[in-house]
Amino acid sequence: MDTFRVELGAQAHPVHVGAEILDRLGELACAAGLKSGRAALITDSNVARLYGGRATDALAQGGFDAAIIEVAAGEGSKSAATLDQVYDRLVAAQLDRSSVIFALGGGVVGDLAGFAAATYLRGLAVVQVPTTMTAQVDSALGGKTGINHRSAKNLIGAFHQPRMILADVATLATLPDREFREGLAEVIKYGAIMDAPMIAALESAMPAILARDASSLQRIVDQSLRHKATVVASDEREGGLRKILNFGHTIGHALEASAGYGSYFHGEAVAIGMIAATALSRAHAGLSAADADRLQRLIEAAGLPTKMPTAWRGEHFERALKLDKKRTGEGVEFVLLDRLGHALTRKLGFEEIVAHL
Amino acid sequence: MDTFRVELGAQAHPVHVGAEILDRLGELACAAGLKSGRAALITDSNVARLYGGRATDALAQGGFDAAIIEVAAGEGSKSAATLDQVYDRLVAAQLDRSSVIFALGGGVVGDLAGFAAATYLRGLAVVQVPTTMTAQVDSALGGKTGINHRSAKNLIGAFHQPRMILADVATLATLPDREFREGLAEVIKYGAIMDAPMIAALESAMPAILARDASSLQRIVDQSLRHKATVVASDEREGGLRKILNFGHTIGHALEASAGYGSYFHGEAVAIGMIAATALSRAHAGLSAADADRLQRLIEAAGLPTKMPTAWRGEHFERALKLDKKRTGEGVEFVLLDRLGHALTRKLGFEEIVAHL
Repeated sequence: MDTFRVELGAQAHPVHVGAEILDRLGELACAAGLKSGRAALITDSNVARLYGGRATDALAQGGFDAAIIEVAAGEGSKSAATLDQVYDRLVAAQLDRSSVIFALGGGVVGDLAGFAAATYLRGLAVVQVPTTMTAQVDSALGGKTGINHRSAKNLIGAFHQPRMILADVATLATLPDREFREGLAEVIKYGAIMDAPMIAALESAMPAILARDASSLQRIVDQSLRHKATVVASDEREGGLRKILNFGHTIGHALEASAGYGSYFHGEAVAIGMIAATALSRAHAGLSAADADRLQRLIEAAGLPTKMPTAWRGEHFERALKLDKKRTGEGVEFVLLDRLGHALTRKLGFEEIVAHL
Repeated sequence: MDTFRVELGAQAHPVHVGAEILDRLGELACAAGLKSGRAALITDSNVARLYGGRATDALAQGGFDAAIIEVAAGEGSKSAATLDQVYDRLVAAQLDRSSVIFALGGGVVGDLAGFAAATYLRGLAVVQVPTTMTAQVDSALGGKTGINHRSAKNLIGAFHQPRMILADVATLATLPDREFREGLAEVIKYGAIMDAPMIAALESAMPAILARDASSLQRIVDQSLRHKATVVASDEREGGLRKILNFGHTIGHALEASAGYGSYFHGEAVAIGMIAATALSRAHAGLSAADADRLQRLIEAAGLPTKMPTAWRGEHFERALKLDKKRTGEGVEFVLLDRLGHALTRKLGFEEIVAHL
């Protein structure tokens, strides 16, 4: 098991990454200073079936008497309606201000449970226990929580740092292939924006990773979370450095939104977005053709898409691009690479972006 | 105009108290470093009629183009349904992450608008512009925001500090008498728990206060907010010292809940709660009979109730008492006075509390 701390002052917290460590959840939560007793475990129907029993047993060993709150699997649960049901269940479970909420699942569960924790009795402690690749390498760390609104994804939310993160890479073994691969987009992203040697390591380890070798998975999850922790610790609220984590995401988000959510998985759209950002980096940041090719080959090796669909030039795509949360006037703060392993941001006009795709 | 800062580190912010200062809202918001441009002014139907136009004019002078979002007056607006409507209006007003929300009104508007600001796009800046006595001397300061849930008041919420507070005591002139007087309960509370000379000053100034003399009002609002600021700055999340602000509130809340919300105004229930807490302070903290009498006479001079209704011994009251958020096991952390101007907390059993009433 690898352990490190996210250095966030009063919100500093430990991160544990390992294989088959779910059974230590209760013990590690106690060691993190969390108060045992009444608690809640929020999870979804798929994850509950696979790991719900083991998680509650592990919690009981640490003295946590956790009510299981199960929501339907899928993005639809990131809604005000589901949140309201979660509140009702928290009332029924008689949680008080010192109680802990455990979020066991992927990004949807983490965001929903994190937001419920942020807003119930003005804030309960939350422990993130991510079980998907995307959640383990990205969304579980950083404190972003929230739900969707009919007009936009993640419109309602709060920053609420977890008190502990436990990523058991053994849970990745049960992921469907497409869910597993989409998470690799974020892993590759960390290498692209801040760690050139990680790109080389991923190139050689990709076969073992795709075979879901536990030690290879532990290494990439640990590396990814450490990189994200470094960025988040220096910029919790996304005022500056944290923006580089959006590499591939400006176009990725616009693609997801314009193609209709669900057509692309988030990581797939980010993969395509990274390729597009690479082309813009060639034009605006001096990225070499060799580096651009290397990144493209790595994304392909992970089994991720790299080609914009024919629809990308459409009106929908442009409109979605202009709704980007980082929009400022007629352009957007765009993340570019000047070389593999180093990112910068530059304001690019919408016309410029579309013209280069 | 009196101005001071609430010392909350990165969340430190200015407080302005004065007569007829609403017209300076835009100018002072700019001076506080808030970004002008698109903004929202959340208010209720009563306050909009009285002060909506002046507030938007004042904002325009500071360069704030504020969309008015009006909710129905009354506690019913502290609901998930109204919050959802507010989100829709914020979307329609095209606010972005740098936009400011101005909360103009009493406690309901402040709590609702503050919570909307806490959760829209993971947190927008909010400026509190309280217009009722209770909001000016208490709820606008401290960062508590939230809405009610069908099972409990303020169940859903967040700590979200305002970026500025502007209390125009001239707005108190239009308050109905009962609303005005209930706010005095919180003013008297500050004297009781932390400022004996303030009790003496209130004794002599009460006629001028009840005549709504502007300079007397400015003095008590300023004193009250400064006291609350001192407490909140030392204990933002209510871990320790901030608990003393609950003097009179444990029994007050139980009374409000058991009598049915609306039978008593919050401040009226707190006044009765302070008298009850005084009796317990006599028994458990050595408060003198003279001090207890003095506090009772001051509360009566403010025109506030001091007598428990006959219903107080009822089952409803006891059940409500046991639902207190500060409950720990079979008792509650109760705020007592050992002398006028000094509070302490002591764990008291429910039986003990009820036996003394």
